[in-house]
Amino acid sequence: MIVPSSTAHPVRLAVPEDADRLAQLLHDFNVEFATASPGPAVLAPRLHRLLAAEDTFAVLAGDSIVGFGLVTLRTNVWFDGPVALLDELYVVPPFRNQGIGSGLIVLMESICRARGIEQVEINVDEGDHDTRRFYERHGYRCGSSNGERALFYERDVTTPATG
Amino acid sequence: MIVPSSTAHPVRLAVPEDADRLAQLLHDFNVEFATASPGPAVLAPRLHRLLAAEDTFAVLAGDSIVGFGLVTLRTNVWFDGPVALLDELYVVPPFRNQGIGSGLIVLMESICRARGIEQVEINVDEGDHDTRRFYERHGYRCGSSNGERALFYERDVTTPATG
Repeated sequence: MIVPSSTAHPVRLAVPEDADRLAQLLHDFNVEFATASPGPAVLAPRLHRLLAAEDTFAVLAGDSIVGFGLVTLRTNVWFDGPVALLDELYVVPPFRNQGIGSGLIVLMESICRARGIEQVEINVDEGDHDTRRFYERHGYRCGSSNGERALFYERDVTTPATG
Repeated sequence: MIVPSSTAHPVRLAVPEDADRLAQLLHDFNVEFATASPGPAVLAPRLHRLLAAEDTFAVLAGDSIVGFGLVTLRTNVWFDGPVALLDELYVVPPFRNQGIGSGLIVLMESICRARGIEQVEINVDEGDHDTRRFYERHGYRCGSSNGERALFYERDVTTPATG
C-alpha cells in the first residue's frame, strides 16, 4: 500500500527560490553515499536556473524541506509529449520511513500526468534492494516493455574513445 | 579497435527533411525486434518536429540512409550543460558488421563534445550481449560512477498507482 505523505510534511512543487536548500540537500545526499559533489555553491545557481525553465522540476516535502525529488524531461520519439526521469529522490535520514518518499512520488506522477507525460524512468543501483523494492511497490518495472531487464550504461565523452 | 565508417556510407547529422526515411527505419527496427510501433505515418511528423528543435538530434549513414542513431538531451544538475541519451541505434540488416554503427557513435560523440555535452547514456537489454559488447568497446560502462551496475526502471504513469 502506498502511504500518503504525512500532513506534518506537506508536499509541493519547488520554485526557483528553493534552490539554495535543495542544493544543500543534493550535496548532503552525495556525501551520504560517498559520491563526488561540486558543492552547494556550484549546485545552487545551476538549480535555480534549471527550476526556472520548463524541462526540469522538483517536488519537495515539509516547510523546512526534509525530502525532495528532482525530475528532468526529455523528448522521446515513441511518445507525443516528453518523458520524465526521476534523477534524484532524497529524504533526510531522521525523516525516513514515514511515507515522505511515497508522497513525493505520488505528487511527481500527478504533475507528470498534468503535463501530458506518459512515462517516468528511474536508474537504480542493482544492489540497492530497499530502493528497488520501493520503486517496484510504486509500479516501476525494470525493462517492462519486453520482460527483459535493461541496464543503464554511461560514458564521459569529453575525450574521444581510444578504441 | 573502433572501425571508422566506410566511405561508402558517409555519416552526417540528420536534418528535419530526413524524418520520413528515419521514421520508416524506426518502424522497421521495432518490427525486427517484435516491439510495438505506432507506424511511420505517426512517427514521421513527430520526428520532423523533434529534429527541428534543439533537444533532439540524429546521426545517419549512407546516402540512402542505411543506419542511424537518435539522441535526446536533458538537463542534469551534476553538469553545466545537458547530458545525452542514445535512444536508438539501428543499422539495416544487410549493412551490419561493416563499422557503420561505430561511425555513427564516433560522429554522435563528436557532436556532443561540440555542444558541451559531457555524458552520453544508453539503456541496453541485459541479455543483448552483442550490443553490450559493442558499447563496452566504445567505452560505455554500466554504473561506472560507483562500480555497481545500474538498472533502468520505467512506469506508465498515465494512471495513478494503485499501491
